[in-house]
Amino acid sequence: MEKQAVFGDNLEILRDHVGDETVIYLDNNATTALLPEVHGAIQEALLIGPSNPSSAHQAGDAARHVLSIAREAVAELIGASTEHIFFTSSGTEANNWVLHALTRKRPSKVVITPIEHESIRQKAGFLKAEGVTVHEIPVDDNGLVLLDAADKLVTPDTSLVSIQWVNNETGTIQPISDIAAICRSRGVLFHTDAAQAVGKLQIAVTDIPIDYMTFSGHKFHAPKGIGVTYRRPGTPLSPMLGGGTQESGLRPGTENLLGIAGIGKAAALRRCRMPNICTRLAHLRDRFENAILARCQGVVVNSGNAGRVCNTSNLRFPGVDGQAFMARLNNRGIYCSQSSACTSQIPEPSHVLLAMGLTAEQAFESIRFSFSEQNVPEEVDEAVQVITGTYSELKGLMVARSPA
Amino acid sequence: MEKQAVFGDNLEILRDHVGDETVIYLDNNATTALLPEVHGAIQEALLIGPSNPSSAHQAGDAARHVLSIAREAVAELIGASTEHIFFTSSGTEANNWVLHALTRKRPSKVVITPIEHESIRQKAGFLKAEGVTVHEIPVDDNGLVLLDAADKLVTPDTSLVSIQWVNNETGTIQPISDIAAICRSRGVLFHTDAAQAVGKLQIAVTDIPIDYMTFSGHKFHAPKGIGVTYRRPGTPLSPMLGGGTQESGLRPGTENLLGIAGIGKAAALRRCRMPNICTRLAHLRDRFENAILARCQGVVVNSGNAGRVCNTSNLRFPGVDGQAFMARLNNRGIYCSQSSACTSQIPEPSHVLLAMGLTAEQAFESIRFSFSEQNVPEEVDEAVQVITGTYSELKGLMVARSPA
Repeated sequence: MEKQAVFGDNLEILRDHVGDETVIYLDNNATTALLPEVHGAIQEALLIGPSNPSSAHQAGDAARHVLSIAREAVAELIGASTEHIFFTSSGTEANNWVLHALTRKRPSKVVITPIEHESIRQKAGFLKAEGVTVHEIPVDDNGLVLLDAADKLVTPDTSLVSIQWVNNETGTIQPISDIAAICRSRGVLFHTDAAQAVGKLQIAVTDIPIDYMTFSGHKFHAPKGIGVTYRRPGTPLSPMLGGGTQESGLRPGTENLLGIAGIGKAAALRRCRMPNICTRLAHLRDRFENAILARCQGVVVNSGNAGRVCNTSNLRFPGVDGQAFMARLNNRGIYCSQSSACTSQIPEPSHVLLAMGLTAEQAFESIRFSFSEQNVPEEVDEAVQVITGTYSELKGLMVARSPA
Repeated sequence: MEKQAVFGDNLEILRDHVGDETVIYLDNNATTALLPEVHGAIQEALLIGPSNPSSAHQAGDAARHVLSIAREAVAELIGASTEHIFFTSSGTEANNWVLHALTRKRPSKVVITPIEHESIRQKAGFLKAEGVTVHEIPVDDNGLVLLDAADKLVTPDTSLVSIQWVNNETGTIQPISDIAAICRSRGVLFHTDAAQAVGKLQIAVTDIPIDYMTFSGHKFHAPKGIGVTYRRPGTPLSPMLGGGTQESGLRPGTENLLGIAGIGKAAALRRCRMPNICTRLAHLRDRFENAILARCQGVVVNSGNAGRVCNTSNLRFPGVDGQAFMARLNNRGIYCSQSSACTSQIPEPSHVLLAMGLTAEQAFESIRFSFSEQNVPEEVDEAVQVITGTYSELKGLMVARSPA
């Protein structure tokens, strides 16, 4: 089995934590490992010396060059032009920025869904406290936005509609073209949080009436701490932060050159490898799901009837405490998660699964497995072994503990 | 001469741009080069694999470890406790955050100075547009805050006073203890932008009634794209961004692990090397200034009568076009700047020098030279040679061009 492929040089570090031989990382929606080529690009950027892209003198040239190459690669990955790409410190910042910028005037009305990422949900909460009206379009039991409801809630006085392209917990792909079309027909600006879509779906952002798109690099093997805001030409966007002239004056602050070098390389690689990566990831995911469903009676695929992104499998294991299950899996070197990493420190049932109609108990029974191009079929098979074994074990415990 | 010390492995890249042998980087207030040890710490962080500090499982442990070590080193550099240190994406974000957080209620009143960094000035402008009252305490001809004026402007209804500890253009050190004491006596919260102070002054932040302090890593040899907000225990601070539970829920967004590893190492090194570095930098700066003043008649040290930080020299060369002068110096491999890098793309006279009472012409005649621990005396001497030669050349041109 190609374990090296998963953790690269760092397998040993993780083994120290795990204490055994099995280390299978299936939490790629939380974060991915750097690809060796991305590592290489950061190495090059590390050698650049004292170079501030904002400096007028030639010492700034090297940094400006890195910025320019990276911006081009990122733009190409989503089919945009470089002048519409703005680097931020994360998807979270990028999301906050768009919501902030489009709700400066009062009255303002924002339309979201109940299954958005925490960065949209909490920012919407802040806006609500400031007097902005926030509406939520409900989703069906697969997590799909109800278009009829969208049709009613998106009115010409809406300041912004913000809907995740792909859900981070279930992988559900929203009908973004349809939603964008509804917005466009009413002259309403449309933003999509595409953190889990970029690099997993073929995206030509200008083919759809998307006004703003945001994402982060660490979901496709760039480093953590680098995000992107795309803005369609001609749509309004004011800075959230005050400061210097960086990013065309729209996102001030000295640039994170290492992160930008990394996301540039990761984007370039991803573009070359699409759509093969998607096919391969879908095969891995299906191999995994089919094996689990065949061996574990009663397991349910959350959002199983929706179109889902290639790499995500959110499974409900009825009758077991999902947190205990996950803890055992993690101790056995199978890394997976409940809900998103951003909220995983909070022991609450997933808001996404609740919005889809699951009970709190069902939500707690659910675990997310997410694959990356670094996973191999042998890992999937090994993970299935451990998961099915642990599931039986826990079910056995439940039976033993239940009153005679 | 130890040119390698300045640019490390990257000397060749800069030589490509410069086209000759002389490469002397005296723009360290804009950004500094990574120290080899910081480079090493980032290398280690690059090997960490897929580790999200927010992940509940052990794969997150390695990232959490990096975060924890770095936070400790940064806290120690300024004499704070780790729980009061929050990582941001830049000094700019850190400054915006504090101003944002402390002005949520209306009415709000903020007191700044006319010589603040662009991130404070522009954010204050945004707040003004939102109805916040903004007052500026004037400065004297050395750039020092007028304490009498501060005494009058800081009233109990002030939401926040925000004053730079060390000016980025002139190096002027503000009487921060006095200003903080005025604020404390009125129960007013006090923030200092310490981007140019941290690592150049011995700081024990809890010895002074400072409520918030912000800075960035790339001013002391950490990478670009990582900043810090310090908050005194018990003072209010709400998040600016909505999102996950990172940084105690106060600054959401997946952490920039490479940047954090870098600032941690840079902070640890700096702490060990203080106060020797300050002494050495002051010697370099004085050697430079004394030689220039001895050889170039009429040159004036801006803020020359104020206490200044060890590494900064802002010189006015009467009778020459400072932009042309700087351009020639840069072409000859002496990297220096006018005003700050964040505003250097805008050909306007420095707002700092104007506020000190210089005319626009005098401001344009002024150039900032800023040293780092990587500069050596031989570079200073070589820079002086080039600067004095270029100055004579330009003065000669001016005489030749002037009407007979």
